[in-house]
Amino acid sequence: MSRTIEVCLTPALLHLYAIEKSIVVVIDILRATSSITYGLENGAESIIPVAQVEDCLRYSNKDYLLAAERNGEVVPGYDFGNSPFSYTQEKVAGRTIVLTTTNGTKAMHMAQKRAHQVVVGSFLNLTALCDWLKVQDKNVLLLCAGWKDQFNLEDTLFAGAVVNRLRKDFMHFDDASVAAEDMYLLAKDDLRTYLKKSSHSHRLEQLNIEEDVQFCLKLDVCKVIPVLDGERLVKLF
Amino acid sequence: MSRTIEVCLTPALLHLYAIEKSIVVVIDILRATSSITYGLENGAESIIPVAQVEDCLRYSNKDYLLAAERNGEVVPGYDFGNSPFSYTQEKVAGRTIVLTTTNGTKAMHMAQKRAHQVVVGSFLNLTALCDWLKVQDKNVLLLCAGWKDQFNLEDTLFAGAVVNRLRKDFMHFDDASVAAEDMYLLAKDDLRTYLKKSSHSHRLEQLNIEEDVQFCLKLDVCKVIPVLDGERLVKLF
Repeated sequence: MSRTIEVCLTPALLHLYAIEKSIVVVIDILRATSSITYGLENGAESIIPVAQVEDCLRYSNKDYLLAAERNGEVVPGYDFGNSPFSYTQEKVAGRTIVLTTTNGTKAMHMAQKRAHQVVVGSFLNLTALCDWLKVQDKNVLLLCAGWKDQFNLEDTLFAGAVVNRLRKDFMHFDDASVAAEDMYLLAKDDLRTYLKKSSHSHRLEQLNIEEDVQFCLKLDVCKVIPVLDGERLVKLF
Repeated sequence: MSRTIEVCLTPALLHLYAIEKSIVVVIDILRATSSITYGLENGAESIIPVAQVEDCLRYSNKDYLLAAERNGEVVPGYDFGNSPFSYTQEKVAGRTIVLTTTNGTKAMHMAQKRAHQVVVGSFLNLTALCDWLKVQDKNVLLLCAGWKDQFNLEDTLFAGAVVNRLRKDFMHFDDASVAAEDMYLLAKDDLRTYLKKSSHSHRLEQLNIEEDVQFCLKLDVCKVIPVLDGERLVKLF
């Protein structure tokens, strides 16, 4: 078993990685991949990630729920915003949701062009994801969606959590995975407090989404692994 | 004083930063910026960084010392390789050296196109560099040269050391600088052991440059700050 784990710290570095035979795990903790995980766990049939609010328009009929925010508010006429709390069983069971998420969508679409398989990770499905990755005979690239191509702390911490769980089952780790794991070990006892160091902590406060942030840092609330199938994210099994 | 410090983890992310009014510190700890610092400290008149061994050819007359390695060996016909131990006073005082360094040169040339000023950092001149940055009224970007555009540990640790020294004198720190500082704090008591975690630790061992690595991690052996002036690195003062 000479499988490798690598961490791509932002989508702007993805071209450096050979991913044709790899599973790519897309990570956008606040809040896209957390909401996607929670939505599929709660019975959504599928979730279609799009980059811009305008991209939702081609789905604007009653078959779809549309999710988009601008400046922390639900866009008028849309069904809900990006809070994971919107993705409850009552609202999403059996439905397809079109979710607007700039960084997460970009990362998923870039990875999909070349990767063997694209799945979604979040603290909400950490154990389920790691248990599945362990028994695949594939290299793994953990792709942090970041913020406008910039490195961010929360996505890197999650990548580090996965590296830490999979250390015994994989052989080679790149420098970014070493760094991510050490940051995770430093932060793991109180992820929320650690993230207060973040440069965009202030932006998050202004969005008034503290409950969302705390929820997105909860471990193992879900058992699903969302996988990209064409334009749709669906349950892997 | 609302100056910012940011850390650019690899040259592939440099386009994301507004550096027109910033001082950019180029970091290529193993071994380019360490050897440059040591060479200027030891009286070299200037050092011209070039990317390829072939680029040295236009300087091949007795006015220049030529430095290049291939696979850890001095290129035949060249004066020395990339070990900082070659840059002694006896060898370099009063001379101009043409130094082949792929990652470092790329980072310097990219930064020079847009930055207010480009200087060179290494553990060897950490205190001198930080003392100088403190009294400039400029934003600072710490640019890790990395390895073929990939993130690497040693350059990031040095960036973290600078952030740690300058924390009180600057206002805004991006997520990468938070991560770099935390990694530095984790590693600082034994940088060499920490770097054994690196994915290219094995490559370094094969190059048989352990003494070089240990020297490049020494603090404050030098007082110079190399600054890019046209194609040449010279002493700032």
